[in-house]
Amino acid sequence: MNCTACIDRINSPEDVKKLNPQEMIELASDIRNGILNRVNTISGHLGPDLGFVEATIALHYVFNSPKDKFVFDVSHQCYPHKMLTGRKYGFLNPLDASITGYSNIYESEHDHFIIGHTSTSISLALGMAKARDLKNENYNVIAVIGDGSLSGGEALEGLNNAAVLGGNFIIVLNDNEMCIAPTNGGLYKALKELRDSNGTSSNNMFKSMGYDYYYVEEGNNTQKLIEAFEKVKDIDRPVVVHIHTLKGKGYEPAVKDKESYHYAMPGFLNADSSAVCEVETYNSLTADYLLSKKEKDGRIIAVSPATPAVSGFTPEFRQKMGKNYIDVDIAEQHSIGYISGLAKNGAKPVLGILSSFVQRAYDQLSQDLALNNSPATILVFWGGISSADMTHLNIFDIPLISNIPNIVYLSPTNKEEYLAMLDWSVEQNEHPVVIRVPFCDVVSTGVKDTTDYSKLNKFKLVNSGEKVAIIAAGNFFKLGDDVRNELKDKLSINATLINPVYLSGVDTELLESLKQNHNLVITLEDGCVDGGFGEKITRYYGNSDMKVLNYGAKKEFTDRIPLSELYQRYHLTKELICTDIAELIKK
Amino acid sequence: MNCTACIDRINSPEDVKKLNPQEMIELASDIRNGILNRVNTISGHLGPDLGFVEATIALHYVFNSPKDKFVFDVSHQCYPHKMLTGRKYGFLNPLDASITGYSNIYESEHDHFIIGHTSTSISLALGMAKARDLKNENYNVIAVIGDGSLSGGEALEGLNNAAVLGGNFIIVLNDNEMCIAPTNGGLYKALKELRDSNGTSSNNMFKSMGYDYYYVEEGNNTQKLIEAFEKVKDIDRPVVVHIHTLKGKGYEPAVKDKESYHYAMPGFLNADSSAVCEVETYNSLTADYLLSKKEKDGRIIAVSPATPAVSGFTPEFRQKMGKNYIDVDIAEQHSIGYISGLAKNGAKPVLGILSSFVQRAYDQLSQDLALNNSPATILVFWGGISSADMTHLNIFDIPLISNIPNIVYLSPTNKEEYLAMLDWSVEQNEHPVVIRVPFCDVVSTGVKDTTDYSKLNKFKLVNSGEKVAIIAAGNFFKLGDDVRNELKDKLSINATLINPVYLSGVDTELLESLKQNHNLVITLEDGCVDGGFGEKITRYYGNSDMKVLNYGAKKEFTDRIPLSELYQRYHLTKELICTDIAELIKK
Repeated sequence: MNCTACIDRINSPEDVKKLNPQEMIELASDIRNGILNRVNTISGHLGPDLGFVEATIALHYVFNSPKDKFVFDVSHQCYPHKMLTGRKYGFLNPLDASITGYSNIYESEHDHFIIGHTSTSISLALGMAKARDLKNENYNVIAVIGDGSLSGGEALEGLNNAAVLGGNFIIVLNDNEMCIAPTNGGLYKALKELRDSNGTSSNNMFKSMGYDYYYVEEGNNTQKLIEAFEKVKDIDRPVVVHIHTLKGKGYEPAVKDKESYHYAMPGFLNADSSAVCEVETYNSLTADYLLSKKEKDGRIIAVSPATPAVSGFTPEFRQKMGKNYIDVDIAEQHSIGYISGLAKNGAKPVLGILSSFVQRAYDQLSQDLALNNSPATILVFWGGISSADMTHLNIFDIPLISNIPNIVYLSPTNKEEYLAMLDWSVEQNEHPVVIRVPFCDVVSTGVKDTTDYSKLNKFKLVNSGEKVAIIAAGNFFKLGDDVRNELKDKLSINATLINPVYLSGVDTELLESLKQNHNLVITLEDGCVDGGFGEKITRYYGNSDMKVLNYGAKKEFTDRIPLSELYQRYHLTKELICTDIAELIKK
Repeated sequence: MNCTACIDRINSPEDVKKLNPQEMIELASDIRNGILNRVNTISGHLGPDLGFVEATIALHYVFNSPKDKFVFDVSHQCYPHKMLTGRKYGFLNPLDASITGYSNIYESEHDHFIIGHTSTSISLALGMAKARDLKNENYNVIAVIGDGSLSGGEALEGLNNAAVLGGNFIIVLNDNEMCIAPTNGGLYKALKELRDSNGTSSNNMFKSMGYDYYYVEEGNNTQKLIEAFEKVKDIDRPVVVHIHTLKGKGYEPAVKDKESYHYAMPGFLNADSSAVCEVETYNSLTADYLLSKKEKDGRIIAVSPATPAVSGFTPEFRQKMGKNYIDVDIAEQHSIGYISGLAKNGAKPVLGILSSFVQRAYDQLSQDLALNNSPATILVFWGGISSADMTHLNIFDIPLISNIPNIVYLSPTNKEEYLAMLDWSVEQNEHPVVIRVPFCDVVSTGVKDTTDYSKLNKFKLVNSGEKVAIIAAGNFFKLGDDVRNELKDKLSINATLINPVYLSGVDTELLESLKQNHNLVITLEDGCVDGGFGEKITRYYGNSDMKVLNYGAKKEFTDRIPLSELYQRYHLTKELICTDIAELIKK
């Protein structure tokens, strides 16, 4: 039998159960080819999926999905599972790109949740197990967690509670020695000690919490894994099966450089890795600023919750920063408390975080940071409407952050503004500051920005006009300018253009002055309009004759909708906005 | 020397260092009397503070605050520290009630943060320690954590990161065998094993993470504690000092019933504990409903993240619910993932949580629950503007929850609505539902509510009038009705009154119809107006001539401001609102 033949015969987990050991090896090879093909075609998580191929075959060989229920944490390890559960067409040619890269209830009865954020599997699976027990049903519930997810607060909270379930509950800990970037903390030291002792170390945090515990050193050996899983199948209590796998296995570059190949982009198989991209980006500007600043001031410290690449914290940057860079592992809540402590004791922390993940630490933003007025700096990356998966939308950070007291939320519109805001934030001692880093190509005015950002909520009047005022924030400042030009061309209106700068407050003086010769204000924000910045403007004008239109995303989870379609849906083009304005004025 | 004399001589930690062992015993007695006096006078955390008296004396004897820095988790154990750091007047007669019950940077240089939510101490203190190291300073940083806080995600994330600091860092783990209620999970099993083995068990999660570890069985023996703290003072690496204390020590009722006396109300020393309050409350309604429902349906399960009393989940209720009640320990994030799993697998979970704490799980509300459309029920208690401490405000839940897609956020205005909504939510299978339980005395119409709540965002038109429409949500429905009457009396306006029912969406049909014969809409919500419910109404009318006024709390952290003062500040009285309306109409 050749490799192609093997995956061809697999249409459901039932087919996996018919394979002999040699066929399983062939199947593993087929799956790896499928993963490489998918990622090379449409991007995706590469290293963690490559490492979990044998474990997935073994899981489906031993357990009976969907009666037995698997929950894959953060979906980083779910591609092999997808290929074995009727979705191989998302991986093999001709490639069906409608199959998502994440666990998805709409695709298969073998998936029980939509999952994209980390550290949720134990909690979700434990709920399923408890429901099973309440209903007096009988099957296995298996949480698959790894790739750095264990350090996230929800996972640890779940680990505490799952230990006392009193019924069947299986945690498969996929220990590939990595997070997205290398792991750092004490938990990972504990796992290393277990690995080094072949699972026999008396220091065993899982046993100490009451779990049964099994260790499988050869986590890429299907037969060894089958042996282990058969031991725990139908167990009547909580158990941890700790398996040691190789991230990237089967694709040598991904084994050698585990961080770079955690996620790969289309065409990576043929890309020239020696080609270094020298284009200036907001990431490179950030890194350059921090490195330069740190040379002058040893109190500067860059912090990442396990996603350094998002912020431009490259391996080279980290090496140069030395002790002035910390990766706290996947631990968004802790990262905010930590920078609050740093700031309160005189250091100058700058945390880089993805918009979609900053929401994992709301209470810490409010209590640890804002309530204490700790002068830390948070850089929110990728904020904006996008064609992203529904698990990774970046449109909720404005409603989230701008409604917390004390936090100054800034939205720069170009390079010079960004750097001036960043430097102001690092040097000041009064406020917690969040900066929404522009998510676009670098725009430069070429002129140093000398604005005093300590004058809070002072909007910038860019063009003074009449009738219509456009308040265009951050990424959408350019759209605002385009609308202004369109209004001039199409309706002969010389509209006022305002860069609000602050997302967390309004410039009441400026807003009041607009009443003199404007009767319409439009707000543009690159995020969810519900609870967002624009509504604050609208509320301000609620008692007046000023009409206000708020533009931004609707409150909804969108799933890989093309950006152009979303812009049409939300009327986020100069043409649609001008049509709206023309209709309103006509009334 | 008599007891009174001892505390009289203590004006700063320096004075503690002068005491001999016998005087320390007398001081401990004085401190306990002070704690009892304060709590009996103005309420407060009783049991955890009584248990931490000796440890606090020992800490101040050994360490040099404020150069050495203590961070007290959740502030449950900070009263003795306050009494030894210049704030004994908040405890002794004549009692200065301006001293807060929480760690407070504005009160003393010995406090480094404002703290009221749990599980933050390790992160905050670790930031301070890292800042110390960046500045090449030299002193001890000590996080004091206990009373159940260790199971919270941020604490565990911090524990992971602190293990690899590489410098001085001391965690004092105050193990009083309790949370607010009894502890449950695997972490607490691990602590018990350490206690039972006098700290010698080979199963040691702290050691496995790389910490040095010391155990003090006699955690209420000052001299033993001094010995231990002297061993770790100036240590050059992270260490856990695990001390076993008695919650409630020195006040026998608080030792016998640790949960009831975790927090006590004024006058508790003379209260007749046999007097049972039989008044119907929204808590008792909730418990009665769940008990009755569970008799008919074994899939009902009540869940609490370690704050059962908030929801009316009394010990008697818990005992009757049996396996259909789960306390997940302090673990808000996990609790949301857990109920999502329960709901997805066919159980009917009802989680009770405080408004101030629901914000600890934003990402789980969004990703684990809403994105998956899991039909779980969350009851948010205490939501509303209050005279609470700034650490425990309950005004942010509407901006937080109502801007998450898919969640139906309901705001009942009386008993019958509440019970009908609760039953609808438990029985339906379409939506994640949050109910903002009224925070006031029970209001009853006496008529069973037969509304079909599956017709989402259908507002209730209570009185059809003209000119002015009042949209009054939840707790403020009565205020809305008062305003309506006032408008009739003072301005001869027959105003429309609307109960919006839903905080998460607007009834566009009804809002549109109001345009016919109204020119002003006012919204009333008992929470922060920024990002809240009212702004959605205002945005809807942005393109029209309708004027809209949004009433609610300002975006600010208020600290123990009398409610009447806040109502004046925010114009939340019928008189002030009518004056606003009269002025606006006059224009």
